[in-house]
Amino acid sequence: MAQGTVIHVTPEQPTYAVCVLGTEPQLDVCGSAPTGCTFFSINASPGVVVDVAHGPPAKKNPTGSSKWPLDPGLEVSLRMRAASSSMGDQKVQISYYGPQTNPVHALLYLTGVEITLSADITRTGKVKPTKAGKNQSTWTWGPRGQGAILLVNCDRDNPHTSAMDCTDDRVPDGADVQDMSLVTLSTRTPRDFFSKHQLVLHVAKSEMDKVRVFQASYQRDSADIGLATNQVLDSAKASPPPGSLPWPSGLPSSTARIALCNADCLRSSLLTQRLCTPWGPGQGRSSWSPQVSACIDVQDMSLVTLSTRTPRDFFSKHQLVLHVAKSEMDKVRVFQASLTSQQLTSTCCYELPKALVFQDSVAFRVAPWIMTPNTQPPKEVYVCRIFENEDFVKSLTALAKKARCKLTVCPLEESMEDQWMQDEIEIGYIQAPHKALPVVFDSPRNRGLKEFPVKCLLGPDFGYVTRGPQTGGVTNLDSFGNLEVSPPVTVGKKKYPLGRILIGHSMYPSAKSQEMHQALQDFLAAQQVQAPVKLYSDWLYVGHVDEFLSFVPAHKGFRLLLASPRSCYKLFQEQLKEGHGEALLFEGVKNKRQQKIKDILSNKKLREHNSYVESCIDWNREVLKRELGLRERDIVDIPQLFKLRTDFTGTPKAEALFPNMVNMLVLGKYLGIPKPFGPIINGRCCLEEKVRSLLEPLGLHCTFIDDFTPYHLQHGEVHCGTNVRRQPFSFKWWHMVP
Amino acid sequence: MAQGTVIHVTPEQPTYAVCVLGTEPQLDVCGSAPTGCTFFSINASPGVVVDVAHGPPAKKNPTGSSKWPLDPGLEVSLRMRAASSSMGDQKVQISYYGPQTNPVHALLYLTGVEITLSADITRTGKVKPTKAGKNQSTWTWGPRGQGAILLVNCDRDNPHTSAMDCTDDRVPDGADVQDMSLVTLSTRTPRDFFSKHQLVLHVAKSEMDKVRVFQASYQRDSADIGLATNQVLDSAKASPPPGSLPWPSGLPSSTARIALCNADCLRSSLLTQRLCTPWGPGQGRSSWSPQVSACIDVQDMSLVTLSTRTPRDFFSKHQLVLHVAKSEMDKVRVFQASLTSQQLTSTCCYELPKALVFQDSVAFRVAPWIMTPNTQPPKEVYVCRIFENEDFVKSLTALAKKARCKLTVCPLEESMEDQWMQDEIEIGYIQAPHKALPVVFDSPRNRGLKEFPVKCLLGPDFGYVTRGPQTGGVTNLDSFGNLEVSPPVTVGKKKYPLGRILIGHSMYPSAKSQEMHQALQDFLAAQQVQAPVKLYSDWLYVGHVDEFLSFVPAHKGFRLLLASPRSCYKLFQEQLKEGHGEALLFEGVKNKRQQKIKDILSNKKLREHNSYVESCIDWNREVLKRELGLRERDIVDIPQLFKLRTDFTGTPKAEALFPNMVNMLVLGKYLGIPKPFGPIINGRCCLEEKVRSLLEPLGLHCTFIDDFTPYHLQHGEVHCGTNVRRQPFSFKWWHMVP
Repeated sequence: MAQGTVIHVTPEQPTYAVCVLGTEPQLDVCGSAPTGCTFFSINASPGVVVDVAHGPPAKKNPTGSSKWPLDPGLEVSLRMRAASSSMGDQKVQISYYGPQTNPVHALLYLTGVEITLSADITRTGKVKPTKAGKNQSTWTWGPRGQGAILLVNCDRDNPHTSAMDCTDDRVPDGADVQDMSLVTLSTRTPRDFFSKHQLVLHVAKSEMDKVRVFQASYQRDSADIGLATNQVLDSAKASPPPGSLPWPSGLPSSTARIALCNADCLRSSLLTQRLCTPWGPGQGRSSWSPQVSACIDVQDMSLVTLSTRTPRDFFSKHQLVLHVAKSEMDKVRVFQASLTSQQLTSTCCYELPKALVFQDSVAFRVAPWIMTPNTQPPKEVYVCRIFENEDFVKSLTALAKKARCKLTVCPLEESMEDQWMQDEIEIGYIQAPHKALPVVFDSPRNRGLKEFPVKCLLGPDFGYVTRGPQTGGVTNLDSFGNLEVSPPVTVGKKKYPLGRILIGHSMYPSAKSQEMHQALQDFLAAQQVQAPVKLYSDWLYVGHVDEFLSFVPAHKGFRLLLASPRSCYKLFQEQLKEGHGEALLFEGVKNKRQQKIKDILSNKKLREHNSYVESCIDWNREVLKRELGLRERDIVDIPQLFKLRTDFTGTPKAEALFPNMVNMLVLGKYLGIPKPFGPIINGRCCLEEKVRSLLEPLGLHCTFIDDFTPYHLQHGEVHCGTNVRRQPFSFKWWHMVP
Repeated sequence: MAQGTVIHVTPEQPTYAVCVLGTEPQLDVCGSAPTGCTFFSINASPGVVVDVAHGPPAKKNPTGSSKWPLDPGLEVSLRMRAASSSMGDQKVQISYYGPQTNPVHALLYLTGVEITLSADITRTGKVKPTKAGKNQSTWTWGPRGQGAILLVNCDRDNPHTSAMDCTDDRVPDGADVQDMSLVTLSTRTPRDFFSKHQLVLHVAKSEMDKVRVFQASYQRDSADIGLATNQVLDSAKASPPPGSLPWPSGLPSSTARIALCNADCLRSSLLTQRLCTPWGPGQGRSSWSPQVSACIDVQDMSLVTLSTRTPRDFFSKHQLVLHVAKSEMDKVRVFQASLTSQQLTSTCCYELPKALVFQDSVAFRVAPWIMTPNTQPPKEVYVCRIFENEDFVKSLTALAKKARCKLTVCPLEESMEDQWMQDEIEIGYIQAPHKALPVVFDSPRNRGLKEFPVKCLLGPDFGYVTRGPQTGGVTNLDSFGNLEVSPPVTVGKKKYPLGRILIGHSMYPSAKSQEMHQALQDFLAAQQVQAPVKLYSDWLYVGHVDEFLSFVPAHKGFRLLLASPRSCYKLFQEQLKEGHGEALLFEGVKNKRQQKIKDILSNKKLREHNSYVESCIDWNREVLKRELGLRERDIVDIPQLFKLRTDFTGTPKAEALFPNMVNMLVLGKYLGIPKPFGPIINGRCCLEEKVRSLLEPLGLHCTFIDDFTPYHLQHGEVHCGTNVRRQPFSFKWWHMVP
């Protein structure tokens, strides 16, 4: 909120004051009223609006002008209609009246100035001049919300470094500038205003680890005059002081100046213990808010003027040196205000501290990291090349071609035999009105693919973020197969237009229970726009939500697919009834013991295991129905059997008995489903047939991909082995109300 | 939100299921429908309500009962009217019909149980039984809000320790129990329900550093049967597992059981890096929420029954030992379910993990720490005894007597010559519907009075909290003279029924600027109910807001007092005009250079200094008017002069030229004001007369107290040297909406 200050007047001598357009400074009429005076009247130049309020009603005096009693509760405020063309060109006269005395007059000379910080608070992608006095210090959500947006500058525009742009010390260039948000400072003042006043742009100390301000020559609007040098608002530099940037005041008035904000971390000596935390709480920071404000101050200064009248070539032989004594150099800073051929004017901060005349600020919110569900169109598929998956990659290439989407294969030397592309990364995006870019969230899992996100994804307009312990201390639940997102949903009256994040968790804490690392949970929750739902996944051997659920697009909407032992038993029971009890699971699979349908059905222990698995998935079914507002008709049960095996803590955990079909790759309407190797009946796999019969009526195309040796036997499937960059939502996140 | 799970039925064999009252478990009718069947009908005992929804409309069949098509989108849910008296006493029959087959029937035997976690969610001070199925997992603000409240157990009921109750390992006794919040678990089940099911009470892992749960024999209601032993839900103990507490199931049904929640820190091995942070973010915790939930789970277990039929004295000579092999002891836990004279029933968790049948939770919010403004009635005044302040303490004793309020003098050996009682502590309170207690917030300033809060204040029903660095790294702005609170205010439409916290800050960050330590700011902001306002105080030598403002009660409302150089100059000017230019400031003060009114008025440098001070106070005046919704008539200007002196960084800072009258002690309508030693005119101090004329019409009594030598000369005054415990607000914090 823009704030001016109080203007005092006194009959003894004229007062000179500045009034910033849009503010309504209080005029202290009573403070210096001469003793004995009981009334006052006020006259002002046409450029000044005077408002007398909260006082007793005015009385007309004989001359026809209004007179008010000098009441201590009186509120008189001023407002300027336009910027002044010269200092003090507007005048206010206060006349004091008493019963025994002649009227006494106090004179006030006013200078109207326009000082406006503008940013893209209307979210159109462009900075439009802000109306003077508009409150820009609050940020609000929703289609009618206001407030500017800041991208985390987490891509890498500089090909010569391996670091994100926000962590390097380089002054931004053209490409980098596009990732930042613009603040424009417009001033309209008389020519010599800046000889007596100083502007300081600053951010709060507590926000200094979130933002850096650059003053750039970048020209967005031809009316703006660029500045020759870039200055960084950075606490690492001794001068300017931490967090503040004295605005060069040597430029003519009516000049627009530009600053760029860059959500960022500072690495000053003050803040070495603080990590880069642009996106939610990180280690060492006790609390975090996504909001940042840029503030502008106007300060009074004292003026020293040096006037010279010399022959033209005097200065070719002589030099003037302005100096202060060494012992006083800690008290005074000298600024050069303007330089014309005739005159060298220097400004010197006198020993007296500077008084504030005006303060304003603009609020920004850091753009959240947003995940994309299976219902968003795919742009690029990622898969690893390992020793044994040549056929798998071929099948995937064909599928990607059908779906008209790019395929990127991580080469052998980069994958380090780590085929779990889903687990190392999650690709989302960030968006401001002027720009959007994909951002990879790098899991702290850090196995063979550890270097892949930084080496192969981070780059120009491809951002990067990571959280959690980078050297161990992670569990299976920290892999991003355990991090999914639903399509947009509505739950009762509450809308989630970007869907909800789903993470796997333990049902309740115990000595052996696992959950996603708190740093990851905190990061995801801090994004606010896709409120996370905790599911129950630590009953699984690997422990990921993608082992029992998936989402597929269907007729403008979607379906939730859930793995279903019951559905599989029912299918096998029907086959038994129809005389196919001898049909074999895993027929044709090498080195794998085949099992007859009738034996599977009569295996009591397997039934018990699957009944337990069913109860675990049922629990999640109820949570999903409640938290995503789903009905039974939105859910498709995919036949699947599980078996229990004991994990390293001795706890029995579930894993798929045959390739887990729900763990599929979804590329638009093209599905890459793990080939289940189910019993062949009438020449066709009955599991595949069943799944086709469930999904094809929804307009989907099923491709069953053999992932048996390189993935299934290693406890994963097609989804675990792939990743997808998808198109961002057309819905803008700032239009929602989280 | 209470959740049950899915019930599946099958025609092959009857199903047994549990339904918790208040839940509506889904009945999976389609899942096991026999092949070829297309319709079903359903019949249930009178105790069961069946709801068929979202399916196609029912068709009447010839026999008159409803038949529904077996549609995959079908939703059938069950609800029990009452708890069962024996296992499976309610029956549901599903009949499947097909065109070619006879009807096939599936039978479901249902047991209704009542399992209710109750807490004081209606905030009446008593735990009332909760209606089954009521959503208790959300906490809402406002007069119609719901959700239970947890006090931080930060007092010390045990006289034998020096630590707060929440940090000791002692099991709570009667007094301590009163500081905690109650959760009651009521069950109404058939007698043998607990032989097959287990209840586990738990809190989330991420909340385990905020709460400890005690199971106590404390009886609040005669219907409750106490348990013999106290068990602590504490991750430090190996068994029960972290965060969970298996509920003893050996008691007869219809028994109510009691647990107590205690906002607390845990010091388990898991959490040694986490400090006690019950009240907002602390070091090492990345994020913090004041909410905690207690959850209850019901789990299926397997049953082993041991039946004996022996002569009466068989067991006097023989013993039965139930055991599992040592190698299997990590897989199985054995619980003893019930013990009657005839039968020893033991329950054994089979290798299969336990499935969840039901989960419910109750949300609590940690009560905020609340400050009390000057308008609250005083209960106790604190002052230090130092070598030179005997007369001061005498004056204060007289004032406290007038105000009918207790005076506590911190003795010489405890104060360690540190007279700044205001700076070391701030006394607030915490409140739950069942209890309120004062809590001292201990500043990290830690000078002579460092030990005072723990030694002299912490005790039974007097709590303690501290924040910020305890060993250096603090500035003047971390002292609590820089922490004040306004009376209740309304700003536009926004109400602050508990007022707003005021802290002094720098105007903008610079190399030399100071601000209150972020840990203190974070703590104060986290309380939410008194949204802090930042004022501009680092222009002062000491830097505290109490050097330029105070609040006094006045006619059901209040006035803001502001120090005013202008008001003082005006007063002196009037005295000069009336011929008192020779009157002396500091007349009668030893070792102090007296100054004539006319010399003060003609001192140009002093004028300049005070004009700067005026501009700083004016800035705060505008902030206060805006943030507290004040008008000029709510403000009283107290005459005061300042002078500038250079601080250790070389920056000129302001301090009072004569005792700073605004730095007063407010005890109801009795004010203890620093005696200004102003010019004596007609036998009276003109400054005192002026202040009396301003404040006495408001119904206030002014007592001017000589604080010159022990306080004023040390850069403080009466307010800095005292502290007050005040009556809590009658307004309950949970009735507001922050």
